[in-house]
Amino acid sequence: MGKVNIKWTGKMAFNVEVGGFNIPIDATEKVGGMNGGPQPKPLTLASLGGCTGMDVISILTKMRVKPDYFNVEVNGELTDEHPKYYHKIHIRYIFRGRDLPMAKLEKAINLSQDRYCGVTEMLNKAAEITHEIVIEE
Amino acid sequence: MGKVNIKWTGKMAFNVEVGGFNIPIDATEKVGGMNGGPQPKPLTLASLGGCTGMDVISILTKMRVKPDYFNVEVNGELTDEHPKYYHKIHIRYIFRGRDLPMAKLEKAINLSQDRYCGVTEMLNKAAEITHEIVIEE
Repeated sequence: MGKVNIKWTGKMAFNVEVGGFNIPIDATEKVGGMNGGPQPKPLTLASLGGCTGMDVISILTKMRVKPDYFNVEVNGELTDEHPKYYHKIHIRYIFRGRDLPMAKLEKAINLSQDRYCGVTEMLNKAAEITHEIVIEE
Repeated sequence: MGKVNIKWTGKMAFNVEVGGFNIPIDATEKVGGMNGGPQPKPLTLASLGGCTGMDVISILTKMRVKPDYFNVEVNGELTDEHPKYYHKIHIRYIFRGRDLPMAKLEKAINLSQDRYCGVTEMLNKAAEITHEIVIEE
């Protein structure tokens, strides 16, 4: 189960309460907001990136692989037609570290994308989800 | 387009950067986290509730309907099978205010759910999304 409260705080602003934590969200000035927080739609991408990111770091830890830096960059492409949603999502898993074993990185990511990540399982019914692995020097 | 960075900050914690705003996310202690922020999966529900909440308040403002209080409560039911995702989502639109016109509330919500909200359009390919309107005294 999951339960989230999104309480109106004036104009286009809301406070999201999730698991005891609060996140202010808002719209941009262009559509009547005050840009006081992130917009709601990209939170879907944040949910996906956080889910798979936690899977990957958890699996890598079990494999005794510890990167110096790990960033999950999620890019969503909206449909042309309204209501616009992300019909293509590309995830870049970006690592830095010495002698990172590519085969283990690939294995951890494939386990997340194919078997563990519930958000991927949900969103891939609406979007084509692709990914790449980037090792930065 | 949408772009989100989810950067690892240690153990199971990540910092989400979206549109210039930062949200720390984390896992619970039970799975190796430190409970330093919301978990990623319910952010999908937050995205949905924020999207439809902004639609509804925007439409109601144009209709010159101004509630004293408006809260969007989103409940997601996870699948039994792994990877677990929300296969049923129920949205409760909760209002308080004097002489709120139910027909206009219904119209605003139906416009959001049927025509405007891109997150609904995306998630209803994976989940059965239902809703109700609650007017509290």
